[in-house]
Amino acid sequence: MAKSPKKVKIGVLGASGYTGSELVRLLLRHPQAEIVLLTADRRAGQEMRTVFPQFSPFELPTLVSIDSVDWKKAALDLAFCALPHATTQKVVSDLLTKAPKTKVCDLSADFRLHDVAAYAKWYGHEHHAPKFQKEAVYGLVEMYRDKIRKARLVANPGCYTSCAQLAVTPLLKAKAIDPDEIVIDSKSGMTGAGRSAKEEMLFSEVSEGFHAYGVGHHRHMAELDQEFSLAAGRDVMVSFTPHLMPANRGILSTIYVRCTKGKSVEDLHAALSKFYVNEPFVHVLPFGQTPQSRHVRGSNMTFIGVAKDRQPGRAIVISTLDNLVKGASGQAVQNMNLMLGFPETTGLEQVAMFP
Amino acid sequence: MAKSPKKVKIGVLGASGYTGSELVRLLLRHPQAEIVLLTADRRAGQEMRTVFPQFSPFELPTLVSIDSVDWKKAALDLAFCALPHATTQKVVSDLLTKAPKTKVCDLSADFRLHDVAAYAKWYGHEHHAPKFQKEAVYGLVEMYRDKIRKARLVANPGCYTSCAQLAVTPLLKAKAIDPDEIVIDSKSGMTGAGRSAKEEMLFSEVSEGFHAYGVGHHRHMAELDQEFSLAAGRDVMVSFTPHLMPANRGILSTIYVRCTKGKSVEDLHAALSKFYVNEPFVHVLPFGQTPQSRHVRGSNMTFIGVAKDRQPGRAIVISTLDNLVKGASGQAVQNMNLMLGFPETTGLEQVAMFP
Amino acid sequence: MAKSPKKVKIGVLGASGYTGSELVRLLLRHPQAEIVLLTADRRAGQEMRTVFPQFSPFELPTLVSIDSVDWKKAALDLAFCALPHATTQKVVSDLLTKAPKTKVCDLSADFRLHDVAAYAKWYGHEHHAPKFQKEAVYGLVEMYRDKIRKARLVANPGCYTSCAQLAVTPLLKAKAIDPDEIVIDSKSGMTGAGRSAKEEMLFSEVSEGFHAYGVGHHRHMAELDQEFSLAAGRDVMVSFTPHLMPANRGILSTIYVRCTKGKSVEDLHAALSKFYVNEPFVHVLPFGQTPQSRHVRGSNMTFIGVAKDRQPGRAIVISTLDNLVKGASGQAVQNMNLMLGFPETTGLEQVAMFP
Amino acid sequence: MAKSPKKVKIGVLGASGYTGSELVRLLLRHPQAEIVLLTADRRAGQEMRTVFPQFSPFELPTLVSIDSVDWKKAALDLAFCALPHATTQKVVSDLLTKAPKTKVCDLSADFRLHDVAAYAKWYGHEHHAPKFQKEAVYGLVEMYRDKIRKARLVANPGCYTSCAQLAVTPLLKAKAIDPDEIVIDSKSGMTGAGRSAKEEMLFSEVSEGFHAYGVGHHRHMAELDQEFSLAAGRDVMVSFTPHLMPANRGILSTIYVRCTKGKSVEDLHAALSKFYVNEPFVHVLPFGQTPQSRHVRGSNMTFIGVAKDRQPGRAIVISTLDNLVKGASGQAVQNMNLMLGFPETTGLEQVAMFP
Repeated sequence: MAKSPKKVKIGVLGASGYTGSELVRLLLRHPQAEIVLLTADRRAGQEMRTVFPQFSPFELPTLVSIDSVDWKKAALDLAFCALPHATTQKVVSDLLTKAPKTKVCDLSADFRLHDVAAYAKWYGHEHHAPKFQKEAVYGLVEMYRDKIRKARLVANPGCYTSCAQLAVTPLLKAKAIDPDEIVIDSKSGMTGAGRSAKEEMLFSEVSEGFHAYGVGHHRHMAELDQEFSLAAGRDVMVSFTPHLMPANRGILSTIYVRCTKGKSVEDLHAALSKFYVNEPFVHVLPFGQTPQSRHVRGSNMTFIGVAKDRQPGRAIVISTLDNLVKGASGQAVQNMNLMLGFPETTGLEQVAMFP
Repeated sequence: MAKSPKKVKIGVLGASGYTGSELVRLLLRHPQAEIVLLTADRRAGQEMRTVFPQFSPFELPTLVSIDSVDWKKAALDLAFCALPHATTQKVVSDLLTKAPKTKVCDLSADFRLHDVAAYAKWYGHEHHAPKFQKEAVYGLVEMYRDKIRKARLVANPGCYTSCAQLAVTPLLKAKAIDPDEIVIDSKSGMTGAGRSAKEEMLFSEVSEGFHAYGVGHHRHMAELDQEFSLAAGRDVMVSFTPHLMPANRGILSTIYVRCTKGKSVEDLHAALSKFYVNEPFVHVLPFGQTPQSRHVRGSNMTFIGVAKDRQPGRAIVISTLDNLVKGASGQAVQNMNLMLGFPETTGLEQVAMFP
Repeated sequence: MAKSPKKVKIGVLGASGYTGSELVRLLLRHPQAEIVLLTADRRAGQEMRTVFPQFSPFELPTLVSIDSVDWKKAALDLAFCALPHATTQKVVSDLLTKAPKTKVCDLSADFRLHDVAAYAKWYGHEHHAPKFQKEAVYGLVEMYRDKIRKARLVANPGCYTSCAQLAVTPLLKAKAIDPDEIVIDSKSGMTGAGRSAKEEMLFSEVSEGFHAYGVGHHRHMAELDQEFSLAAGRDVMVSFTPHLMPANRGILSTIYVRCTKGKSVEDLHAALSKFYVNEPFVHVLPFGQTPQSRHVRGSNMTFIGVAKDRQPGRAIVISTLDNLVKGASGQAVQNMNLMLGFPETTGLEQVAMFP
Repeated sequence: MAKSPKKVKIGVLGASGYTGSELVRLLLRHPQAEIVLLTADRRAGQEMRTVFPQFSPFELPTLVSIDSVDWKKAALDLAFCALPHATTQKVVSDLLTKAPKTKVCDLSADFRLHDVAAYAKWYGHEHHAPKFQKEAVYGLVEMYRDKIRKARLVANPGCYTSCAQLAVTPLLKAKAIDPDEIVIDSKSGMTGAGRSAKEEMLFSEVSEGFHAYGVGHHRHMAELDQEFSLAAGRDVMVSFTPHLMPANRGILSTIYVRCTKGKSVEDLHAALSKFYVNEPFVHVLPFGQTPQSRHVRGSNMTFIGVAKDRQPGRAIVISTLDNLVKGASGQAVQNMNLMLGFPETTGLEQVAMFP
């Protein structure tokens, strides 16, 4: 990793979590990016190889605390913010005020909602940086590519919601499905729950079993409501249940929909195929085939399949992505590429690793 | 395992598969049962400990081929039939003709459908033993206890369908949910797919990932249609998608329903709680709590939870059981206990093994 | 679980960990035992079903803190002590002083070493209850059955050390192997590391990989030194490396030994077979066969295999047990049965659960 | 994947197995290589995306049978041969006879042994291509880099043996360890066993457990004997036991050695550090630290750690690599790079994927 004057200067805030380490994995192979700053408050002073031994062979900046960073002096081209909820608002506000030329791609949920009232309702408090909430662009590239190119602050979408939106939004836009009868049953790998030491995330609590959580009231729903309502041009409220599966990576969403009058399940498949025909990171399988989460592991790909339900007029749409890549850090690098003017696929060409 | 003249004589046909070995695990601890016959055509002549080393410390009959058995001479009190589809019809027909006093609990799908036309439609051929198809009693104890007590031939229900029925049937009977808007998203451990050597069931194909299969046309749907329609008193056709999870045991079904007019989600919970108040093997969790498949592992228990969806009038019901126990062999022993006049819980008192 | 006046009164101290829950799983099916006390300091006031939902269908005492227990009034017949290191010494000392008729089976390492100097060396401090350290009997039943019958305080052996001793001790006693060339490579399931919320025990840190830990200095070595030296009649110091495998249960030890002059590998097998011929919980496989940890899962069995190394005069001995059963709680119930005069196998007849 | 006239033309023979798919994964990102031929006899006529859905987004040659290939016309620059034992000898012989300018990197064991007698002893028959057996260069780059550069036929080393050699060979060469007291206890992920549909490789047979296999007589030993004897300058025969762990990828070898007189464990660490100081794909951890297999997953790295045993003069060396990358296909691409004159690390810069 020889330093190159031509490379952009990148910081990763919150590098000791899984989305942080995944950003480092991807950026180490990005030909235009140089990691010049890594923060992790509780691990400040340690080397990245101590926190994530897979980086042992690489030279990387020593971890520092966020408070110790002089944003102006750091002069980052772009900062990835992979911090917990709420902390983020303060940090982004501080960073963008002191270093207004630095761009920010935020992986938390803090800037995803446009509506201050919706934010307050779901999170139980006023937003701490309402100015930047307005400025933020929702970073699902396949939907907002042009806005992202011009954005200074991008709110990287959630993993569950990315997976669901990539399958459902084109169908709502095409008015091909009934917005009132959408059921989304989602299954996530354990990395989606982060790296905090909690009893319920121990290997022996999680392996060899399956369960739902946050039934009826998961916060990701606010993001789905916003984006689906925009796509449909009316209020949409779906049924959504997240589950944890005994695997590290992957989200698979099984989505039950009813075709609108005059539309067939084949029309749904055609609409998705057309929508994604030129997209590098979304692949629609042949009609009737459905995807497996393991076949996108480690890659920035989303696979989507459409099959007929046996009930006339109903379809089952299944989409899958790697929650740490297209569902988080890969999506973030895709946003970075647009924000900094690189080809969109740079550094994201990894082929999925199966098995 | 000293032989006791008072014990009933039990045969397990198809002992080299997982439902077969699970029957042996349970029967070895059943105080009234003695295993006197084990068949496994491809492993005939071998000891059970060669096929399943966990039985090394136990004395068990040598495996024999089915054709070599003289049913009359065997004089079994009860035979468990854990054979592949179609083979079963011939074997059961032969056995019951030659040894009409032997009772049979069949774990295949062959005798579950009452309607010969429905059978022919789903399986693509006429039933080979229509006489016994009519005689067979559907063996979901919580629904058909009295009939099972008097039955000679019991069709043990499927694992997916047991899990779904235990949650949905009481709600249909109580007319508490709309029969036209039921979505059942089911996840099964790999033992549900059996012990055949297939590429798609290899460890490296299955671990670290998730997928749906049989989307829109799984054969278990015939069984659901029959039982749900009987419960509702009208035709019911649900949306059902089976998935495979990277775990050995367990089925968890996430069921999306709409309450009928005047019924609340709390009413649904009350209906289930009342239905199962005296059942030893079905446990309804407190309102709002949902179960994990790992907490019933190895036991004959079903756990059911009911939670509110955020959409008014909609509920999410989650049920879970061990596909090899309550979903197959434990259910079969429960049927045996009724058929032979033992207390229903005999030999089924295992506490779930977690972790 | 109807109360019966004839049952012995049992307490489980430290019921919120995995050895605690495993004791409860076994005791619930023990026909002579009644659980009358469950302690868990951090979960005091909660129900066991909250801490371990698999017990939801069972009536069990509410969890209390240890300090709140009046040992005299509790009048336990036997207390299982499944507490962390050091805490144990204080609690056992207090309990046996106040309720001298209560018997104690301690699952910690605190009373396993006979030598106060060895204890101080390995644990870095003087023993806090030296009087009871002397009284304690080492609870590996197959080696000390008679002493255990008369003991008031039994030190239940460690999981790694049980697995290794059952394979090696008879060979040392028979002077069949060279005590100076023993290499023990052990692999344990994650439950062996307990239920504490630590980052390195999270599912995503542990699954899909393998590693050694405590290389060269694991505390279990003190216990091995003591027991192997007693068996050999001279000082023995083995090479021992523990590893963690991505599975819940099971220890498998691959043991490399050299036969003493005049002894063949077949002699080693014969020595083990003879030693265990009447033991209900140790099964020696036919010569050349080696065991798999999954085939003893959930049972109190140990499987041992002996195979020739290709180097003349060297053998590979492999032993396996379930770390939570024969390696901890099953062994403890086996000790309880002896201490209270029940048949040794009572409540321990579970057949291994595979798959 | 636009075709480029400057790229070398590569064939993968046996593309439907895991080493085949891993070659495709790596080659798709190799800037100088173009895959022009994929063979898979049983899947001939199918698309690669049917056999391995992770390749769905990529254009790749349709699978053909080996017999249908005209080697001369194919004019491959290099063929990777990932075929089963014995088949390989015939195919390589045929290929090199008809297309003598094509280079071959063979991933099977067929050309690894130099000695025709050793081959016949371990495999039970004469070698079918003795001429090429002599020509073949053993492809462990770190040991034979110069020979590999000039080779036409390279025998890619085995996964277990690569892992063991990288740790042990430098120590034997430095005469730092006693060649008569080496114990190698190896643990492999399931992909090492290939993709054949065998009962013992099913998910439910493999998950949640651990076992040794081929105890005392695994064929990989022939390769270890050859290379260790060459390194030591005398006959070396180690104790070696392979195990299967419930994980997809990774080999971890725990190696027990005795230092030669005058050498300390620190000297061993120093010898390894010096040997690998400039190697891009071998990383020696700081003294006393030991590696985890998950931290090299998906990368071409080997991590090696050295720790003191508590027995004076004894050390524990642990090495780990990804069996499909450095243990097979990554090693093969590294060989290809040397054979075709590319920089050695081209296409192998993937950072390990953890978690």
